[in-house]
Amino acid sequence: MPPNIVANLPSFHGVNDPPALVPVRALLFDTFGTVVDWRGSLLADVADFGRRRGIAADWTRLVDGWSADDDPSMDRVRRGGQPWTTLDGLHRQSLERLVMEMGFRNDLTDGHLSELTQLWHWLRPWPDAVEALRRLKTRCFVAPLSNGNFSLMTNLAKHAGLPWDAVFGADLFGHYKPDPETYLGACRLLDLAPGEVMMVAAHQYDLRAARALGLATAFFPRPTEYGPRQEEKDLDAEEPWTVVAHDLRDLASLLGT
Amino acid sequence: MPPNIVANLPSFHGVNDPPALVPVRALLFDTFGTVVDWRGSLLADVADFGRRRGIAADWTRLVDGWSADDDPSMDRVRRGGQPWTTLDGLHRQSLERLVMEMGFRNDLTDGHLSELTQLWHWLRPWPDAVEALRRLKTRCFVAPLSNGNFSLMTNLAKHAGLPWDAVFGADLFGHYKPDPETYLGACRLLDLAPGEVMMVAAHQYDLRAARALGLATAFFPRPTEYGPRQEEKDLDAEEPWTVVAHDLRDLASLLGT
Repeated sequence: MPPNIVANLPSFHGVNDPPALVPVRALLFDTFGTVVDWRGSLLADVADFGRRRGIAADWTRLVDGWSADDDPSMDRVRRGGQPWTTLDGLHRQSLERLVMEMGFRNDLTDGHLSELTQLWHWLRPWPDAVEALRRLKTRCFVAPLSNGNFSLMTNLAKHAGLPWDAVFGADLFGHYKPDPETYLGACRLLDLAPGEVMMVAAHQYDLRAARALGLATAFFPRPTEYGPRQEEKDLDAEEPWTVVAHDLRDLASLLGT
Repeated sequence: MPPNIVANLPSFHGVNDPPALVPVRALLFDTFGTVVDWRGSLLADVADFGRRRGIAADWTRLVDGWSADDDPSMDRVRRGGQPWTTLDGLHRQSLERLVMEMGFRNDLTDGHLSELTQLWHWLRPWPDAVEALRRLKTRCFVAPLSNGNFSLMTNLAKHAGLPWDAVFGADLFGHYKPDPETYLGACRLLDLAPGEVMMVAAHQYDLRAARALGLATAFFPRPTEYGPRQEEKDLDAEEPWTVVAHDLRDLASLLGT
């Protein structure tokens, strides 16, 4: 195991399992939080929406409540309590509930709700993301494996300049991560064994699910993803993932690109 | 209608239906023949395989027989006579039958058959393709909509440097063109109406199916695609497609990129 060289990664940093790295031919990226700064982008864009439309609201509360609703919403779908609904569809449902709760539903038209929901398509990448992906794609196939739907992921990529080799959306599989159908569905479409694929994420629930199915794993923290709501859990590597990096740029270096 | 400026396109050349062009946000490309030179690539690569392995055969007959078998093979799947099988799988089946018929099955191991089948993953683009796609993607979303499976299409793109925004494979839909599920499946994943999508192909059967579903259409001929087996049918535009171009570079110009 390489020496500990990072203060906030007490256990390890670097390539922890070099043999697991050898067969890797494809890198799959969690996207919201790992590649794009959803919170910083949305905070700016909903405030801008409010200014342009002359609508006042606690936009920070809206953004944080909206994002916090993602997991319970997807869980209803995962558990079969709601038929398959894309992330765009879930975002719209959550938004309608939130603006009702926050008391400004009547200030918004249906067109406004669509416009706000569409803001998830135009999120900006973290500063290291585009260059690191360009480097990594010289060595491997690179694609997002996100809970976003295909159109959301392709709009995001086009707008943010994410140089993916291809795009997966949860609607290809009709399942949300961490359901096995997502990771294994991507491996099947790529015609690769799980051990030839590496899941890259700033969220360790995602890596745990991928590792249990035989995928290699890469972790780095995004310590400002949630702003003041940031929890402790994804600041340190909690397990010896195949690779533990400081950020996406560092991952590109650790993989020799 | 613009003036006729090409000898072998007697009916029209240019943008025949400008209003149909306005809403187009995505271009879907037939790939084998339209974007990549499958015949020229395979002829070179199977001959190279023969030299490296010391195996003599009529490689031109093999390549032409192999390609000619594509449509009957896919037709068995389209009509339900064979359960869903990827194009890689159909290529392998056709190859086994052909080398048997041609009397050199016993010169080949199973590994050789896999190696030959895999040659379809490394085809080269026509000389105008990469630059034209780079130009077109500044205006629109660009992706292949081919009968190839996802892994074949992604390997092809990676190897040939095709700068797609995303990749569709027939295995996403479990159908082969011209089944409507392919065109409409791509529109659904893109969250676009058929009229916002343009099918681009050097084969008019493909454009007929797309147009019947409401997609815009772009045609250009690839007059050397089949070598001496080239038929007359796809040399001229037989219908007033939305756009009729000389080649892919010309299409990029006609679309203002």
